[in-house]
Amino acid sequence: MASAELKISTAEHRSRIEKIQKQLRRRRIDALYLTNSTRILYATGFAHISTERPLAAVVPNEDPPFFIAPQLEYDHIREECALADDVLTYPDYPGRVHPMRLFAKSMTQKGLGSSKIATDSAAGAAGGYGYRGPALQEIMRGAKFVEGRDIVDSLRLVKSKQEVRLLRESAKWSEIAHDLLLGNTRVGLHDTLVAVKSSHEALAKMLKKLGQSYLQLKIALSPVVVGFRGQVGVNSAIPHAVYTKNKIRRGDVLVTEAGVEVGGYTSELERTVIVGKPSSRAKRCFDAMLKAQNTALNEFRPGIRCSKIDEVTNKSVEDSGLRDGLRHHTGHGIGLDGHEPPWLDPGDRTVIREGMVFSCEPGLYFPGYAGFRHSDTLVITRSGMDFITHYPRELPELTI
Amino acid sequence: MASAELKISTAEHRSRIEKIQKQLRRRRIDALYLTNSTRILYATGFAHISTERPLAAVVPNEDPPFFIAPQLEYDHIREECALADDVLTYPDYPGRVHPMRLFAKSMTQKGLGSSKIATDSAAGAAGGYGYRGPALQEIMRGAKFVEGRDIVDSLRLVKSKQEVRLLRESAKWSEIAHDLLLGNTRVGLHDTLVAVKSSHEALAKMLKKLGQSYLQLKIALSPVVVGFRGQVGVNSAIPHAVYTKNKIRRGDVLVTEAGVEVGGYTSELERTVIVGKPSSRAKRCFDAMLKAQNTALNEFRPGIRCSKIDEVTNKSVEDSGLRDGLRHHTGHGIGLDGHEPPWLDPGDRTVIREGMVFSCEPGLYFPGYAGFRHSDTLVITRSGMDFITHYPRELPELTI
Repeated sequence: MASAELKISTAEHRSRIEKIQKQLRRRRIDALYLTNSTRILYATGFAHISTERPLAAVVPNEDPPFFIAPQLEYDHIREECALADDVLTYPDYPGRVHPMRLFAKSMTQKGLGSSKIATDSAAGAAGGYGYRGPALQEIMRGAKFVEGRDIVDSLRLVKSKQEVRLLRESAKWSEIAHDLLLGNTRVGLHDTLVAVKSSHEALAKMLKKLGQSYLQLKIALSPVVVGFRGQVGVNSAIPHAVYTKNKIRRGDVLVTEAGVEVGGYTSELERTVIVGKPSSRAKRCFDAMLKAQNTALNEFRPGIRCSKIDEVTNKSVEDSGLRDGLRHHTGHGIGLDGHEPPWLDPGDRTVIREGMVFSCEPGLYFPGYAGFRHSDTLVITRSGMDFITHYPRELPELTI
Repeated sequence: MASAELKISTAEHRSRIEKIQKQLRRRRIDALYLTNSTRILYATGFAHISTERPLAAVVPNEDPPFFIAPQLEYDHIREECALADDVLTYPDYPGRVHPMRLFAKSMTQKGLGSSKIATDSAAGAAGGYGYRGPALQEIMRGAKFVEGRDIVDSLRLVKSKQEVRLLRESAKWSEIAHDLLLGNTRVGLHDTLVAVKSSHEALAKMLKKLGQSYLQLKIALSPVVVGFRGQVGVNSAIPHAVYTKNKIRRGDVLVTEAGVEVGGYTSELERTVIVGKPSSRAKRCFDAMLKAQNTALNEFRPGIRCSKIDEVTNKSVEDSGLRDGLRHHTGHGIGLDGHEPPWLDPGDRTVIREGMVFSCEPGLYFPGYAGFRHSDTLVITRSGMDFITHYPRELPELTI
């Protein structure tokens, strides 16, 4: 049963910790102090809701990791994190004594009071909501703090086999969810209702099939999300529209999104969908978008720079005469976070490597009319790329 | 129609901007530079998805607010934010030229190149996902940056009539959603499926009733969220459990949550629910939790300190002999964020004022057995408090 579980194995988390420790020793750093929930999940497998209450996972360069956490997370860490050697707690935030003072004491208790510490937060806390407090480095005057975000983030750039497996499982259910969305989309309906209904139907199918091997790790009403996020009709021209009051109408261009969280990982599948017979303008814009995406997709391979992918994509759009529709770059890395480096952007000269995972999503937006964007997730192979999301991209199959 | 819209009016946003400008002038600060999406929403009414792409709303101490934003947010701000006087854009992140360098140019262009600027971010950017960049204050050497979070956050402490109205509307639909949740909860079902189904049903009712007066402002599959968030059976003992593999079983203690976003504001309604006849142990724990909540509820009034509410609540739990079940303080402020200051905590000596809104949610948790917590949202009145959430709190009505 355990081997079939849809999450990163404890063995892989142990190996990640070892890689972190090796980096620390090489750089003569005594410990890595992490506050960001994604980095903590990547390093230790522990998923939590990050709030105003500070929580840190600390990876000493030899000894096993330990946590410093609010009392309400004690049992949670103990039950869910096999790698946690110890959990030091404070009562709550803000507390009679500020948590950061207790964090400093805990670090000293662990022998790190006057050590060299890499961290992802100069404050010592993720700092959500209304958090206020003295910076840990101001309290721990005997210690030396250095920038530590890249110690974890550099490991995240290339995905492991287990990570790609989770992304593929995510994509599989996104495709099913997207089919249900298209089936449920009708003129006169409110887009959000279609979204929640379709998400529910896909979730039911997924939980029935996966049973005990599935475990939601991130806080969300549903680990299956399929919908439109406000990109309905004229609002489809707003790439990050959040909402719309408009119901779905005949002739509308819709931009969908489908994502399913599996073991913390979510792939990205987005499609431009047209309600009713597409106009010639819609066809022209759709074709230009599709051509740009195809151009980008053909370019992915190890050794090419991220900026080059964006360059050829923009060239394709220019050739179509729709350059004024561009609003953003071609895509981004994706994994535990919905957006991750590297970026398919003129400013990112990162050389693409096997195992990197990207969204590929050139978009065209025409204010007052509509927006056109597909997004696919793909993994770089030895000689090119392989789709993680498999879904029709041609207009006839995306007309409803 | 406009007056019936369930959002903060442009007039109130104008008045918030004026209050900010007054503070700035009093403190001889030239402008407030905001990067946090909640603060930007509070000050200007503009809601956006905060990503790795920096976005700032700038409030000069006399002139109207302007934005510095990625190109993909230009049309969004222009269409949605009546208060935005100007929108300066950069192509994308990371860009050929780093956005912060363009932000510095924009600030200079606006006459703020060598001014005194209050900000909520020393970096000049919210810094989500894999964002990296030079701090704005390092580029703008001629300007002086000072801490500015409290300029907005102090205004948020006491809620206006419009804010309380939105929270009451939120609570009304949370109550309806919670009824649906209880009706859908059955032995043998997966808690997440019950949650998404009930959220969909409540959303359908809400959109049908509110029609064009309702507008979702925050990104989420559904603005109506009702469910269990993993607090099912033995997992109810984990206050911030995210997930469970367990289906609902007879005898389970469940801790629910219901929240509906209305104009950006979400009230908090949570209930301890027992599936089947409660055991004597369950009754004892439930009664102690309810007694503690009642004790707290009786104490709220202007003039009392936050710490005092927590003190009497803990005393009640001690009197019940269940002190070892305590894991967190009694509650928190609530508004645009799910958790806001002030905190009902021994370390917060804030004097409570009329118009403050709190969650009241003492909890008792017994690892390996179950957890017990109700949460209600209330507003402080001239002489005491008034419930924002109205929902049964007694065991017979919460047994299914």
